[in-house]
Amino acid sequence: MSGTGFEIKYRDGLARLGEFSTPHGKVRTPTLLPVINPADMPVSPEAMKKIGAEMIITNSYIIYNRQELREKALENGVHSLVGDIPVMTDSGTFQMYVYGRVRVTNEEIIEFQRKIGTDVGTILDVFTVPGTGREKARKEAEETLKRARAGAAIKEDMALAGPVQGGIFPELREWHARELSKLDLDFHPIGGVVPLMENYRFRTLAEVIIAAKKGLTPSRPVHLFGAGHPMIFPLAAYLGCDFFDSSSYIKYARDGRMMFPDGTRRLEEIHESGCACPICSSFTAKELREMPEPERVKSLSLHNLYVSFAEIRRVRNAIKYGDLREMVEERLRVNPHLLPVFRVLKRETDFLEQFEPVSRRSAFFFTGPESLDRPIAERYYRRFFSRYLPSRRGDGRVIIGLEEGERPYSRFYAPVMEKVEEVADARFIVNSVFGPVPTELDEMYPIAQTVIPNELDPVTQERMKERMEAFSHALPPGLAVMWDGEETIEMLKMMGTKKRRMGKERSPEQDLERNRGKGSERNSKWDIERVKAVVDMQFGAGASAMLNGRVKIVKSRRTGKIRNVFVDGKHVLSMRAHDGLFTLKFPGAERLMKIFPPPALRVIVDEDAAEFCAKGKSVFARFVLEMDVHLRPMDEAIVVDQNDRLLAVGQVVLVREEALAFNRGIAVKVREGVEQGQEKKSLGNRSGN
Amino acid sequence: MSGTGFEIKYRDGLARLGEFSTPHGKVRTPTLLPVINPADMPVSPEAMKKIGAEMIITNSYIIYNRQELREKALENGVHSLVGDIPVMTDSGTFQMYVYGRVRVTNEEIIEFQRKIGTDVGTILDVFTVPGTGREKARKEAEETLKRARAGAAIKEDMALAGPVQGGIFPELREWHARELSKLDLDFHPIGGVVPLMENYRFRTLAEVIIAAKKGLTPSRPVHLFGAGHPMIFPLAAYLGCDFFDSSSYIKYARDGRMMFPDGTRRLEEIHESGCACPICSSFTAKELREMPEPERVKSLSLHNLYVSFAEIRRVRNAIKYGDLREMVEERLRVNPHLLPVFRVLKRETDFLEQFEPVSRRSAFFFTGPESLDRPIAERYYRRFFSRYLPSRRGDGRVIIGLEEGERPYSRFYAPVMEKVEEVADARFIVNSVFGPVPTELDEMYPIAQTVIPNELDPVTQERMKERMEAFSHALPPGLAVMWDGEETIEMLKMMGTKKRRMGKERSPEQDLERNRGKGSERNSKWDIERVKAVVDMQFGAGASAMLNGRVKIVKSRRTGKIRNVFVDGKHVLSMRAHDGLFTLKFPGAERLMKIFPPPALRVIVDEDAAEFCAKGKSVFARFVLEMDVHLRPMDEAIVVDQNDRLLAVGQVVLVREEALAFNRGIAVKVREGVEQGQEKKSLGNRSGN
Repeated sequence: MSGTGFEIKYRDGLARLGEFSTPHGKVRTPTLLPVINPADMPVSPEAMKKIGAEMIITNSYIIYNRQELREKALENGVHSLVGDIPVMTDSGTFQMYVYGRVRVTNEEIIEFQRKIGTDVGTILDVFTVPGTGREKARKEAEETLKRARAGAAIKEDMALAGPVQGGIFPELREWHARELSKLDLDFHPIGGVVPLMENYRFRTLAEVIIAAKKGLTPSRPVHLFGAGHPMIFPLAAYLGCDFFDSSSYIKYARDGRMMFPDGTRRLEEIHESGCACPICSSFTAKELREMPEPERVKSLSLHNLYVSFAEIRRVRNAIKYGDLREMVEERLRVNPHLLPVFRVLKRETDFLEQFEPVSRRSAFFFTGPESLDRPIAERYYRRFFSRYLPSRRGDGRVIIGLEEGERPYSRFYAPVMEKVEEVADARFIVNSVFGPVPTELDEMYPIAQTVIPNELDPVTQERMKERMEAFSHALPPGLAVMWDGEETIEMLKMMGTKKRRMGKERSPEQDLERNRGKGSERNSKWDIERVKAVVDMQFGAGASAMLNGRVKIVKSRRTGKIRNVFVDGKHVLSMRAHDGLFTLKFPGAERLMKIFPPPALRVIVDEDAAEFCAKGKSVFARFVLEMDVHLRPMDEAIVVDQNDRLLAVGQVVLVREEALAFNRGIAVKVREGVEQGQEKKSLGNRSGN
Repeated sequence: MSGTGFEIKYRDGLARLGEFSTPHGKVRTPTLLPVINPADMPVSPEAMKKIGAEMIITNSYIIYNRQELREKALENGVHSLVGDIPVMTDSGTFQMYVYGRVRVTNEEIIEFQRKIGTDVGTILDVFTVPGTGREKARKEAEETLKRARAGAAIKEDMALAGPVQGGIFPELREWHARELSKLDLDFHPIGGVVPLMENYRFRTLAEVIIAAKKGLTPSRPVHLFGAGHPMIFPLAAYLGCDFFDSSSYIKYARDGRMMFPDGTRRLEEIHESGCACPICSSFTAKELREMPEPERVKSLSLHNLYVSFAEIRRVRNAIKYGDLREMVEERLRVNPHLLPVFRVLKRETDFLEQFEPVSRRSAFFFTGPESLDRPIAERYYRRFFSRYLPSRRGDGRVIIGLEEGERPYSRFYAPVMEKVEEVADARFIVNSVFGPVPTELDEMYPIAQTVIPNELDPVTQERMKERMEAFSHALPPGLAVMWDGEETIEMLKMMGTKKRRMGKERSPEQDLERNRGKGSERNSKWDIERVKAVVDMQFGAGASAMLNGRVKIVKSRRTGKIRNVFVDGKHVLSMRAHDGLFTLKFPGAERLMKIFPPPALRVIVDEDAAEFCAKGKSVFARFVLEMDVHLRPMDEAIVVDQNDRLLAVGQVVLVREEALAFNRGIAVKVREGVEQGQEKKSLGNRSGN
């Protein structure tokens, strides 16, 4: 290992807030590396730092070819040319692509980069242009692999970047990424994509990024080579890119073009700039046009950098806040050529779902029919059929369908539910935007935490109808009706589904009396239903068997929401108020371990770490031996040793593939270790959530 | 008239770049009036001017109630309190709404505003809350009308604002707006909408604005009272609002909230601000959080103002550039409660279409199925059936359907068209996103100037299918086939639709020879078809009769596009390269005048103006006596006197309703006056476009 390393600090799906360590300091990702030409810097690296740059990229081939730069770099290091900031160097590959040839070998340029002390060097990979056929693309990728292998052998203590090539063929990209991941490299650009961006082939770009991500080890940073337009940052970050780089800020400035998050505009076409940056807040478009050329180029460069780094910050904020997908959907609408990316995202739901957290800080904002293709929505729908329905399919209850309404549904529909229960044992299923949603799940993320318009578009309505139909096909023959007020009640009465209650006429007063009594009865019945339903959805079909025994539910006096669940006197679960999901207590974990054999729900750690975990320390990735492949970020994890001995409970940060790949960072945030728990208990059992 | 006045400088649909003149200077619209409290100004009016404010609003009722402010204002004028900037004053209506009562009468507060020298005063209107029933809303609106009438009688030289009320009832809003327009007022806020915005009732807000606009005279500025969130500016401007005002910038700042074009965020929730403004480019979110309170409130206020005025500039730029609708569609996606506004826009297509220009500088960006509800798209589809089809329905040609392809279609499909014409007389209709598009119309706006994704969503595909079906139902029985390559050719051959050409076998060489010869023949045939088709679409069904006679078409040598059209030796039309539409020459105008009786295509001007128009001066609104109600912005207009004598040709700026209402500004930009034309002609006839 060199002085570089990569660690995930926070994540949302494939997107990650990372920390990349270099000999010249730490870099927060995602970030943009502005391209700097050491021979011509209209904006100094110092000024760039102020705008937000934490690392820059320059071209070692240019330095190599200019005697004065070369000598200075060899003598005092590349940082003497560009300042005290982490530096990545490119190798001449792009020059090879543009001019057809370069006068340097792979080994020479790697050696040179090492000698000038770059923080991340790059091999001389072969740039495969999008028009290249499959066979040629494969050969070129093989040549790049060969050079990467040669580079890894001579890189010594320099971090080395091995770009993923493979043209426009996803299977080539994935294979290439997988092969590169086996080598001793530190950084993976996705190469050969500039022509895709130049030609607005965003669908292909998204396919290429996803294919590369499927093959790449998740433990190394991913760099979208040559991506410098803020329009593309949210999508690329959403798909797991950590670095961007570009000289566009200055090239565009020279050409009189200004970047905005939704596209590029020529200064001469701009009447007024709708940008709040210090440049656009200080000068009118006319004043910018009338500036002397060097000043204008500098001003436009600054504008382009301000806008780019604002967008980088916005992306990072969205990852942290949990609304990056909403941001991506917004941005996919700014250019017609971005729209087809929606289809790629839909097609790749299975892949994206693997990294999708179980809940987010932010609400689910419905922004159009495409919102329902989000992995979190698809997951809900699948789990409803595979986890909720199995144990409830044959319970003989009447199904009452309800229309979308205010959330939580069970409060909104309480009067209806009470009326129906007078005459029938029923389940209540809401025809929600997510598909069928039983009222028991109405506080679970994302059901309760969703903002939808009060009028739905026809496409969404159609999809809801299809999903309710799929649900009714999945039911055994029985009674399922849409709520239609008194008519439903009359029908239920006629069918005599709850005959025992229908012997004699009652006075209104008696009815009221009964309802009062039933109120708490009904509530406690529904509380247990809710706990069981959420447990099955969260931990797997059949997990609710963990509740076999004498169940006691403690609710918050203030909110009336479930807080703690006890079985046979033991505290098994606590419910989180913000997402309606459970955190596991040890007795609950033990019960689940009896239901599901390992590695289900488990994270198995090395014996070196067992002791620490038992004391409540978090699980570092390098100690994870095995892990349930179905665990998702923010899922509850049962930390065990190789003998399936319970050590701790906590929350998943990294999914299996990541935990096994990373040498740095936390895989599971432990909430409570068994030994620590015992200590606490001896202090008076204060483990209530 | 007071020292105030409103003039439209540039417009796009209902949206307008205006100039509002006040005794304290001119104000460019749309704009935001920040609310200033003279007793407490964390951001000074001077600082606001630097950020972009050109006018402010303050509350005369607050000044009236505080002795020191009142005395200073009465003595030295309101500008002594808030600085040398145009000032609007509100009247206490909002205080009435919030506190239930005010201690001032309508007459007193109007009088007071006049005395303190405000630039625009406001009557004490009755704030109708959204929950109000129809009858009460009507009564309250009548009371407001009464007060407006009283105000108009005593306003003297002060400009006076009469707010439109009427609650959530569109027909009340429209009636109220119409009644207010009859009074001697200068400015029209749309009132009672703050609760709609606070409760995210954006659909109702859009309905209310549209209803008010339908009733209001277009000659006065429209102010969306209390709208201060940038999220709403694009939509409100698109619907014709010229002014916004708000104290949100400071209220939000005090509450630790930051505004962004897509919503509001609490500073404490912000990890990094994705904004490029000078505040967010200088301070991290953490630094802002840790500032002492007064400094933080000031910084957040500045941020909110920077973002708001950037959005105002962006809106103004979009009006000028022609992509405001795209911007609106983008913004309607940022919050689920904005989505239902799409339905309002669709329902109001007829109204919006009246103000829709015939072309724009910017391309038509397809951003989703809703894009096809834009007035320009709907207009194309309607005109295809009402203007293009009538004279072509029975021409006996084979109809060949073609799939969406690259634009212009006739170049993309040239090989297909040549093959078909070998064996059949055909028309070629493309199954376009706009519905059926004949290849003759493929250079006309917006057909050629449209950017669509290379994969279309299912909703759009379904709509295209429906439109092609509607087209085939509109055809008399005959042959319509989708292009299917050689099979189509074989079928056409079998049907013998062009028998004369199918006598004997030809060698490939002969075929080539024939095609060469046919090339130019085909082109010239298609050139005439194109001219006729565009003329019918642009000027009305049957307008192509203006081409009866010996037609000569002159094309650009460089681009191959049609430039000038002569009939019987006279120059009748020139085609504009950027939108494929015609400009009228006098002989063309004369021919159209014979086909269509007045006032069709005409703008009839007062005799006082006739002489000036004939000399080439533009037509000012106040001289317009009558005007074809079907003329749209940027349409070609034939300027005539009351005896239908041709005076000039030019381009429409204001539509009929506007031209008749305005006392200021240009209604028709004259390109050439008959007398000026003659002068020019004598200089050598250089009027080629």
